Amino acid sequence: MNGITEKLLGIVSDWAGSFNGAFNIRENGQCAGRQSTAHIKIESKTDVPGLDIRILPGTKGESVSIPACVTHGDVDDLVYNDFFVGDGADVTIVAGCGVHTDDGEPARHNGIHRFFLGRDAHVVYLEKHIGTGGGSGKRSIDPVTEATLAEGAILEMDTTQLGGVDDTTRTTRATLAAGAKLYIRERLLTEGSQQARTDFEVFLDGEDSGVDLISRSVAKGNSHQAYRSRIVGNTRCTGHSECDAIIADNGTVTAAPELTANSGDAALIHEAAIGKIAGEQLLKLRTLGLTEEEAEAKIVAGFLK
Amino acid sequence: MNGITEKLLGIVSDWAGSFNGAFNIRENGQCAGRQSTAHIKIESKTDVPGLDIRILPGTKGESVSIPACVTHGDVDDLVYNDFFVGDGADVTIVAGCGVHTDDGEPARHNGIHRFFLGRDAHVVYLEKHIGTGGGSGKRSIDPVTEATLAEGAILEMDTTQLGGVDDTTRTTRATLAAGAKLYIRERLLTEGSQQARTDFEVFLDGEDSGVDLISRSVAKGNSHQAYRSRIVGNTRCTGHSECDAIIADNGTVTAAPELTANSGDAALIHEAAIGKIAGEQLLKLRTLGLTEEEAEAKIVAGFLK
Repeated sequence: MNGITEKLLGIVSDWAGSFNGAFNIRENGQCAGRQSTAHIKIESKTDVPGLDIRILPGTKGESVSIPACVTHGDVDDLVYNDFFVGDGADVTIVAGCGVHTDDGEPARHNGIHRFFLGRDAHVVYLEKHIGTGGGSGKRSIDPVTEATLAEGAILEMDTTQLGGVDDTTRTTRATLAAGAKLYIRERLLTEGSQQARTDFEVFLDGEDSGVDLISRSVAKGNSHQAYRSRIVGNTRCTGHSECDAIIADNGTVTAAPELTANSGDAALIHEAAIGKIAGEQLLKLRTLGLTEEEAEAKIVAGFLK
Repeated sequence: MNGITEKLLGIVSDWAGSFNGAFNIRENGQCAGRQSTAHIKIESKTDVPGLDIRILPGTKGESVSIPACVTHGDVDDLVYNDFFVGDGADVTIVAGCGVHTDDGEPARHNGIHRFFLGRDAHVVYLEKHIGTGGGSGKRSIDPVTEATLAEGAILEMDTTQLGGVDDTTRTTRATLAAGAKLYIRERLLTEGSQQARTDFEVFLDGEDSGVDLISRSVAKGNSHQAYRSRIVGNTRCTGHSECDAIIADNGTVTAAPELTANSGDAALIHEAAIGKIAGEQLLKLRTLGLTEEEAEAKIVAGFLK
């Protein structure tokens, strides 16, 4: 495992010289370390690159980390990871990703993650993305997340793009059975000439299923972000989505959320707001002695926290 | 002018045996009455069916009514009406439309209205649509509205579909110069197997231009509604859109609003809510002695008022 990987692991995962629990480290498309536990089995797929991660029913309080790092240019890493989470399991999954290039060649990671949550399973899924390195090569991370939630399952997804990613297309699809709940928190920062597209599609198929989707983003420099979401309520269910974006400099943002109620018992709500930081907020912090830049940085950090 | 036209005029326009001000009555594609005034000139177009309506600069407190009625099946009426509103004019335009068929043949009206508002002009535009008659023929009204607002112009659009329209596609496009304001209030009721599509696109091109778009709709029976809006802020401007839909029975609704900020000084907000009438609201009215149907009708009427 090279030094850049170690540095990236510290940022995007809970790495502290070692992992606590099951893990698999992916470095430039290769396995740089793996550990299964009594309840969490990690195995390589035999047909395509990637992992089958099986979490036994009833597993409680354990975590599995599957960070992926690209540490130099001219790498286009594609991986298929499937998570089979047994009935009643309650676990944390950490899937950070860092892409680094110091030369003019592009570095890309494309992780296709499928989650199959058993009845009453509870998963906290943390996903941190970062791009680093001084090269002009393009850093891309294109995650695809597909989640299938059985009756009563709960998935809490917390995704963050910390910066340095030149181009990202984030695709998330979820299907919820009766009583299942999906909570999504997305935080996204773009700057320079970065591009970010994010696309959510949630099908509320089971009675009393629910989704709460909150996206917060900041578009600085000349960056562009496009947010798209679609919540489809097919039965008695609740859906709420909210996307708030702050624009600074010449950033541009498009927000296109869609709600579809195919049942009179679906209750769906959406809110969106796009704008720059309010002048009075900046003024207040400047009155306290901060420069304009410091004040803006503080407000942005609070917004994305 | 036939009796059905007189009845429809009473519903969709301010007709009371006669009009107050300039008017043109369109009946099954023909002119059934016209009057210009000193300040408002109505003339037939020479190239396509329709009217050129010229409102002189500075005209104040006048109104122009251009209702269109289709009173039997087997009519597919297409009309192009252009409104040239002079600088500083302050007028009311009433453009109701009724389609009636008593047989199995379809009745359709397709009005393409273009508004050119001069500097600081102020227009209140009222548009009421209804379908009547006992025949099985499909009643369709497909209005297209294109508005170009010069500096400081204000357009208040108030559109209502009162019922009986089997199929409607409503398309509205507007472009706003500096300081121009657009206010849209849309109210839509569908029932049975009716279909309604509504599509707004507003370009905020001038500094301090603004749009406020509020759509309220009720989908009953097996009806389907699709709402789409797009607000594009290209400079310092404000945009707000809100679409609220009540579903009853097996109605279905899709709401797809889009906000695009191409400037850091654009402030754009959207809200949407889809759901059925809250149980406690119904219960309260039933406690006061209303039947469930009466309570629902009262709440729907209040919502669409």
